[in-house]
Amino acid sequence: MVDDMPFAGWGDPSRRHGLPPHAAAWLSKTLGVTPADAVAPAPPEPPPASRLSADALVSLRAVAEVRTDDEARILRAGGKSYLDLLRARAGDTSHAPDAVVLPADEAAVAAVLAACAEHRVAVVPFGGGTSVVGGVDPVALDAVVSLDLRRMDALLHVDETSLTATFQPGVRGPDAETLLRPYGLHLGHLPQSFEQATIGGFVATRSAGQASTGHGRIDDMVVALTLVTPAGTLRLGRGAKSAAGPDLRALAVGSEGAFGVVTEVTLRVRRLPSESRYEGFLVRGFDAGQAVLRDLEQGGVAPDVARLSDPDETAVQLTLSGGGAKGALTKAYVRARAGREACLLILGWEDRVAARRALAKPALKGAVSLGQGAGRTWLHGRYDGPYLRDDLMDAGVLVETLETSASWSDLDRVHTDVRAALTRSLGRCVVMCHVSHLYPQGASLYFTVLAKAVDARQWERAKVAASDAIVAAGATITHHHAVGADHRPWMQAEVGDLGLAVLRAIKETLDPDGICNPGTLLP
Amino acid sequence: MVDDMPFAGWGDPSRRHGLPPHAAAWLSKTLGVTPADAVAPAPPEPPPASRLSADALVSLRAVAEVRTDDEARILRAGGKSYLDLLRARAGDTSHAPDAVVLPADEAAVAAVLAACAEHRVAVVPFGGGTSVVGGVDPVALDAVVSLDLRRMDALLHVDETSLTATFQPGVRGPDAETLLRPYGLHLGHLPQSFEQATIGGFVATRSAGQASTGHGRIDDMVVALTLVTPAGTLRLGRGAKSAAGPDLRALAVGSEGAFGVVTEVTLRVRRLPSESRYEGFLVRGFDAGQAVLRDLEQGGVAPDVARLSDPDETAVQLTLSGGGAKGALTKAYVRARAGREACLLILGWEDRVAARRALAKPALKGAVSLGQGAGRTWLHGRYDGPYLRDDLMDAGVLVETLETSASWSDLDRVHTDVRAALTRSLGRCVVMCHVSHLYPQGASLYFTVLAKAVDARQWERAKVAASDAIVAAGATITHHHAVGADHRPWMQAEVGDLGLAVLRAIKETLDPDGICNPGTLLP
Repeated sequence: MVDDMPFAGWGDPSRRHGLPPHAAAWLSKTLGVTPADAVAPAPPEPPPASRLSADALVSLRAVAEVRTDDEARILRAGGKSYLDLLRARAGDTSHAPDAVVLPADEAAVAAVLAACAEHRVAVVPFGGGTSVVGGVDPVALDAVVSLDLRRMDALLHVDETSLTATFQPGVRGPDAETLLRPYGLHLGHLPQSFEQATIGGFVATRSAGQASTGHGRIDDMVVALTLVTPAGTLRLGRGAKSAAGPDLRALAVGSEGAFGVVTEVTLRVRRLPSESRYEGFLVRGFDAGQAVLRDLEQGGVAPDVARLSDPDETAVQLTLSGGGAKGALTKAYVRARAGREACLLILGWEDRVAARRALAKPALKGAVSLGQGAGRTWLHGRYDGPYLRDDLMDAGVLVETLETSASWSDLDRVHTDVRAALTRSLGRCVVMCHVSHLYPQGASLYFTVLAKAVDARQWERAKVAASDAIVAAGATITHHHAVGADHRPWMQAEVGDLGLAVLRAIKETLDPDGICNPGTLLP
Repeated sequence: MVDDMPFAGWGDPSRRHGLPPHAAAWLSKTLGVTPADAVAPAPPEPPPASRLSADALVSLRAVAEVRTDDEARILRAGGKSYLDLLRARAGDTSHAPDAVVLPADEAAVAAVLAACAEHRVAVVPFGGGTSVVGGVDPVALDAVVSLDLRRMDALLHVDETSLTATFQPGVRGPDAETLLRPYGLHLGHLPQSFEQATIGGFVATRSAGQASTGHGRIDDMVVALTLVTPAGTLRLGRGAKSAAGPDLRALAVGSEGAFGVVTEVTLRVRRLPSESRYEGFLVRGFDAGQAVLRDLEQGGVAPDVARLSDPDETAVQLTLSGGGAKGALTKAYVRARAGREACLLILGWEDRVAARRALAKPALKGAVSLGQGAGRTWLHGRYDGPYLRDDLMDAGVLVETLETSASWSDLDRVHTDVRAALTRSLGRCVVMCHVSHLYPQGASLYFTVLAKAVDARQWERAKVAASDAIVAAGATITHHHAVGADHRPWMQAEVGDLGLAVLRAIKETLDPDGICNPGTLLP
């Protein structure tokens, strides 16, 4: 976790390992990427002059800290998608917001919204800045400010009897865990962005963590929340559960700043586990692996973390995780046990490991245990993906992820169709996928794509192809990355014209001047 | 399950047992209700003349079966709350809808809504007619029709891999189970109204069943649904789970007919259990019992059904369940084991009983098992409450229930405050309560109230007192009975003025002419 991520990269640059030595040969052989393709990021250009009027600035300064320096603006110019990084690496700062506003409390957030409505200034809530879907793109009205919530970073209340904790939105993932630890509690919401992302961002994007199979999605954890909107403040969530009309909390969760700003959220928390076990398995075939996951989940004996790589992801992981003699040996072992269709399965139990693992055993017949080493390898590298991406982009590789979810019946077809669409669009490429986030009725599919980088259009086209394939297959346009700007074109397919009309009606009620994150959610 | 319940009573009258012989003495001693207070229902008066215009009738007949006979209209004049029954028992049919419309399919529902919008006719969706909160009260514009969904009673699709089933809304609880049984599946959504209520009603009222601790609420079961509204049709739910903006399904679930008509719903289903065990326990003290439930739920080892009666409910159950020597013996045993603070705890496991019961054991230390007899007694009587109510009303007893939910921390205070409010309002009365529907963060409280019946005002006042106490204690106005007409006055407290504005904006978008169940949900 760092205060500010680099403009053109992820996290703490000192944690980058560089690509393993055998990666260069693999990239050359597989994608035709040679050392000549390496490309270093350009330094950022100075951002455009701020469009914020003197009056607006005075109004904002009266209620919150305001930064207008280049650095503050540049660092909130966008999120961390491949296209964001491509732009940033070109030194392009044209998307920088006109100022950065840092409110200290809920009242200040309300006052900022009032000032911005008065001056026709768009407001983009900014937590960790980890959006990979254009969710923090500053889209201006007369101007646009980034509303950075980092000063609102307190744990407000812990109810140890009811196992709930009330947070301000700017609390980062690791800080939430640190704040809860003295109570013997944890949140356990661990998306790959965990080290940078915030509680407010988790809620606003309706995110799911790597342990969602056991701990549930953020949707499932929200007990109560406060949403400050230009039209007033919504305080939602009474009692344990309610039947008092439609659950309005569900309108705030996933609202992506388009309806207002999450300023307080009460989440379900858990007692810290006394033990954990992460274990790798091999399964022969992606179908067989899915059947294992389905049996675990539908049988009520799923572990907290469950993740099944398809044969391509499995092969790449084996190749890149160990070069040399040891790597060759591992690959030979895998081939012998599970053939070319070998799929790596990672299962993780937190608490009551032995009893739960025993219950899971029947579903795991046919899966060959690789032991805890493979599990620990995944565990230790679980937040490293974005660092690896920086290294790959330096090497001249297009690298991006996308995700969806589908019913168990549809999972295979969606997998096939999305792979085909990406391959058709990109030509020579590697498409890897894993199943994770298990539900009784289905699961998510998470794709990682590698190709030789050409230009932005290359990925824009591939993303359209993949998204069209997802929607055509009846799957959802996003399982946990949210809508942002990037998925807006598919929201009509997702909820229909009438669903969009409902979302617009809600937005008009809560944000009549349209100042709230205008670039996101609604086409 | 019967086709039509009696106008002034519940279910199948042949299933009424009458009060046990020792009940009369208890009612006299406890409430001062004597045989002289017995009151037989009056026959229904003829309903008022239908206000439906000839034009409207022609339009409706063109698209659906329409009944205008007295019997059809009278039987849809309201739900089954104490006040509904009091009115019905007085022969009052003044609330009868002007006609009953029975659409055969989704297209017919849309056509009925269009015809009603054109003719300013209100539409009240009617499933089992079991609302206890005025949710099916026919409130007229120029006229009002009851939209009875019984002809839409098909199981449309079963996905045995993804464990989902797609139902039309008019399928009754027991029929849903009968339709699923050949697939080895069940739904397991078992509210007390189960034998009469429908899938559409479950969804529209956001209900919770007696096994919700294990199986979840209906909110948790809805994978996809179709809501036909005057503005068009919403088809919601793609993929297994989604982050594509706010979950619009949550607007349809609990919309109580105010936004449109649920015409299709895909629900999560389960494999039929191979075994089950219901068991009674005694706990000394309501606090101690709550601690047991909390440990079970927060420890992840809760059974599927969990229900803890407070000392008053326990005492009444023991008194009314067995008179004579056996009853006296049971009471003596209970007193000896748990004193006057004895609380009856019913736990029910469906599937993997031994393993799960073993895991639950540590949380149950301090609870004395009464064996499976007590569990079976509860199981066999689980749908009998409404029949008993008819018998009690015949005897001249006020009998009604109300419910809420609260965090574990607040549960005791809510219990105390609601009891006090009811007792203050009613004077001589019996207030019983049980905790059920466990969640990690809290549980529901379900109150049953008995007093000597005086008039409708007597309960109206008591309901206001109890509801004010619930809201003042921070609990929800309803955990699973929905809002209907009866809880409307507390919706402002529940979601605030801005929450109401959002609900109104949604309604105006989906139902611009305000024809959809105008009596419900919104103040």
